[in-house]
Amino acid sequence: MGADPRFFPARGPHGLGAIAEAAGAQVGADDGRVLTGVAPLHLAGPQDLAFCEGRRHLAALRDSRAGAVLVGADARDAVPEGCAALVADAPQLAFARAAALFHPRPAAVAGIHPTAAIAPDATIGEGCEIGPFVVVGAGAEIGPGCILHAHAVVGPGCVLGAGSILRAHASLLHCLAGARVVLHEGARVGNEGFGFVTTKQGDHVTVPQVGRVILGDGVEIGANACVDRGAGGDTVLGPGTRLDNLVQVGHNVKTGRGCVIVAQVGIAGSSELGNYVVVAAQAGITGHITLGDGARVGAQAGVMNHVPAGIDVVGSPAWPARETLKAFAWLRRQVAPKGSDKTGGTA
Amino acid sequence: MGADPRFFPARGPHGLGAIAEAAGAQVGADDGRVLTGVAPLHLAGPQDLAFCEGRRHLAALRDSRAGAVLVGADARDAVPEGCAALVADAPQLAFARAAALFHPRPAAVAGIHPTAAIAPDATIGEGCEIGPFVVVGAGAEIGPGCILHAHAVVGPGCVLGAGSILRAHASLLHCLAGARVVLHEGARVGNEGFGFVTTKQGDHVTVPQVGRVILGDGVEIGANACVDRGAGGDTVLGPGTRLDNLVQVGHNVKTGRGCVIVAQVGIAGSSELGNYVVVAAQAGITGHITLGDGARVGAQAGVMNHVPAGIDVVGSPAWPARETLKAFAWLRRQVAPKGSDKTGGTA
Amino acid sequence: MGADPRFFPARGPHGLGAIAEAAGAQVGADDGRVLTGVAPLHLAGPQDLAFCEGRRHLAALRDSRAGAVLVGADARDAVPEGCAALVADAPQLAFARAAALFHPRPAAVAGIHPTAAIAPDATIGEGCEIGPFVVVGAGAEIGPGCILHAHAVVGPGCVLGAGSILRAHASLLHCLAGARVVLHEGARVGNEGFGFVTTKQGDHVTVPQVGRVILGDGVEIGANACVDRGAGGDTVLGPGTRLDNLVQVGHNVKTGRGCVIVAQVGIAGSSELGNYVVVAAQAGITGHITLGDGARVGAQAGVMNHVPAGIDVVGSPAWPARETLKAFAWLRRQVAPKGSDKTGGTA
Repeated sequence: MGADPRFFPARGPHGLGAIAEAAGAQVGADDGRVLTGVAPLHLAGPQDLAFCEGRRHLAALRDSRAGAVLVGADARDAVPEGCAALVADAPQLAFARAAALFHPRPAAVAGIHPTAAIAPDATIGEGCEIGPFVVVGAGAEIGPGCILHAHAVVGPGCVLGAGSILRAHASLLHCLAGARVVLHEGARVGNEGFGFVTTKQGDHVTVPQVGRVILGDGVEIGANACVDRGAGGDTVLGPGTRLDNLVQVGHNVKTGRGCVIVAQVGIAGSSELGNYVVVAAQAGITGHITLGDGARVGAQAGVMNHVPAGIDVVGSPAWPARETLKAFAWLRRQVAPKGSDKTGGTA
Repeated sequence: MGADPRFFPARGPHGLGAIAEAAGAQVGADDGRVLTGVAPLHLAGPQDLAFCEGRRHLAALRDSRAGAVLVGADARDAVPEGCAALVADAPQLAFARAAALFHPRPAAVAGIHPTAAIAPDATIGEGCEIGPFVVVGAGAEIGPGCILHAHAVVGPGCVLGAGSILRAHASLLHCLAGARVVLHEGARVGNEGFGFVTTKQGDHVTVPQVGRVILGDGVEIGANACVDRGAGGDTVLGPGTRLDNLVQVGHNVKTGRGCVIVAQVGIAGSSELGNYVVVAAQAGITGHITLGDGARVGAQAGVMNHVPAGIDVVGSPAWPARETLKAFAWLRRQVAPKGSDKTGGTA
Repeated sequence: MGADPRFFPARGPHGLGAIAEAAGAQVGADDGRVLTGVAPLHLAGPQDLAFCEGRRHLAALRDSRAGAVLVGADARDAVPEGCAALVADAPQLAFARAAALFHPRPAAVAGIHPTAAIAPDATIGEGCEIGPFVVVGAGAEIGPGCILHAHAVVGPGCVLGAGSILRAHASLLHCLAGARVVLHEGARVGNEGFGFVTTKQGDHVTVPQVGRVILGDGVEIGANACVDRGAGGDTVLGPGTRLDNLVQVGHNVKTGRGCVIVAQVGIAGSSELGNYVVVAAQAGITGHITLGDGARVGAQAGVMNHVPAGIDVVGSPAWPARETLKAFAWLRRQVAPKGSDKTGGTA
């Protein structure tokens, strides 16, 4: 079963040749069949395209009723009879590209909803789609082909590059954003950071937060995630960086290109991530530290020190991954009943 | 002192008999007194109903000025003079039912605010209350007696069952929801999941997320919580499942009936929870694992493996609760000064 | 480089004397220079004021091109030639005050946007600024000089004190708030708490949540943070308490004056914090416990017991800080290769 057409009407149908071309894959034998949609292996029917990558999918592949499947060369023999094999080096990546043939990201439907409140001196680019109750502040510049969904707010002076999307209830303030930026539902960009100084009497005196947020091309911010603006100077997310839902980014944080910040992570003020850093869910990164290019942080880790490029850290406080796993295994042996080592954790 | 009538005007007054009947409790002696509201033991006055359950409440019971109290049979002797005792097996449950006599969930006040933006082909059931700046998309179906509070958004094609409530700023997209579903303020349902594939060059290519969210009858989603839609196939929350505030649910997660997911928990993509699973605050559950019926996860735990039915796990990485507590106690003894074992943690 | 004037037009210029007076600092030599803005040391130019506090800033001070710098007496010698030194006991606090000379918190621009939906019997104080699509419910009272930004919602019966600010998409319900309260973007105050009782059959029965939220003067609630109202009785945040983004506060929590609750912290129902308690990022505090005046909780800690006044706790479960650090160091030594003690964690 492909996608529910109420929500995701598919383009097509498409033949195996067109699909393989979009996917960068090789068709074994093209019997002229056409497909109408995409689906996971275990749900796919004879008109659906699926993919198989890794051992996790192998059992589902053997039982699949899919019309065609993107597979690596090594799994080709497991493709069931009647299912066309499309061979690709990276099947899931090939699937992402082929699926966009059926389900391209919806283009803007040009038009401004009559209820939108747009400042007279704001600039709205050609072909933008502006939904109900959207607010665009004074002097803001919205590039061509952007979509602002219901209730989205763009603050005064902001710049939003071409082809960007603000989903429902998102707010973009004090921000210069590149092209193809996406703020998901309720994302908050450009908020005042948590910046204050406490007097001897215990009163908190706000430090005026007069920096900006700079979002590179293709940055995506998850639902209800928060990115505070700089205190002075900027908070910067490099091109292609993606934040998942409910992530917190403090003032003056900087990331390089293509970082991946998974759900509920928090990054404290002024920390800097290199290129292609990955931070797994619920991890925390303290302020004023650096994570080198390609560093990876485990889920729920608490990073309190600099992490060199290419190093994996886990745990709270975070240690290099190898040491930490050793320590936990060792500790467990100290207290486990004799002979119980094979009971297998929580498995 | 009962509830502030500015916010919660009470129905009533009610006599002890009516209260006992609603609560499923037994009245000791009905002296004809009437009550006007409900309050906690330590705040209740002579016209208020309170309850006492467990040792925590016993001291407050002895000093209470409540007009009547729901108690277990074992605590009946501690009810002070002048306070009527209503005896119930489960006093807090009895209180929940009796309190609904004074404070029923507000019913919809039928009417559509003139500012609401409702698609011409959307269906609004009888008796719905639609607030200011609400948006209902094309083809959406809102069941009878629903309340959509200010700024709520229902996306195109969504189905919302009878008696459901969307509170202020909630968004419901790509979703089929049952009856009596509640989205609290700012809850985000049906967002695009964090689904992409990274090329060798480090570019992230989005996998079109073309699944739905299915919410069973009576599901509740907390304030600013997020439930992503399926990548392909559905994200499913079973009937009666409750999510607290700021919870994150990834794409294709499935829960059974009556699960309880406390604040700030994160559940990664494709994991499956059985019936009546309880996940305490701030815990994280990795992707592609299963938690059996009745499993319970401790606060801040990090669950990285399957958990069998009925098992409690704690810690990060999560272990069965008994082993973990032993390990921590043992570790502490290794480093604590001699004789300090009784200093009692942080107490 | 000072603040971007598109977002933060500065007042001024100001001479050194006026700046020193606002800052409570001493001018070394006033050569009549005037400054036009504020900036961090490493970005400041000849017309900007910066500050230097602590060793972290010393290198940047020596290289700074700032026109003037607020420094402690001990760092005065490090001020580079051409930069005016303003000496203060607490340089960052002095900077906060001087920066407000250039960038005072924007005052309300009196007026009500024509799209705002304000109940006929709500009271709007003098000089309020009410933005587009704001909703103010029946009987609500908004004090003078408040700013309600786009899409803010104030529920029926709420009271909001003078000079308060609700930023975009914030919601304030069932709440009595003092003066100068700030709700940042998407903050949710007065939500229904996670209060229910589960029957033997596994059904969750909601306990009517009929309490309020009381916010003291100067309370600030971060972006997308949540504060549930009391179940019965009130949730109370004392004067000057500040919550960072994405914090969760359960029903009937109470804090004293000036508490600091950093991003993504969760505080479960009915726990009570004294005055000036600090809870670092992502920590969790279980329900029904107390933290004494001045207690401090480390990042990601899990506090499961009472914490006496003035005590620091860290870890999950939380222990007094000193013991925990000892335990981790000891554990690491057990498993680290010989002689590797000096490799320095993740550094």
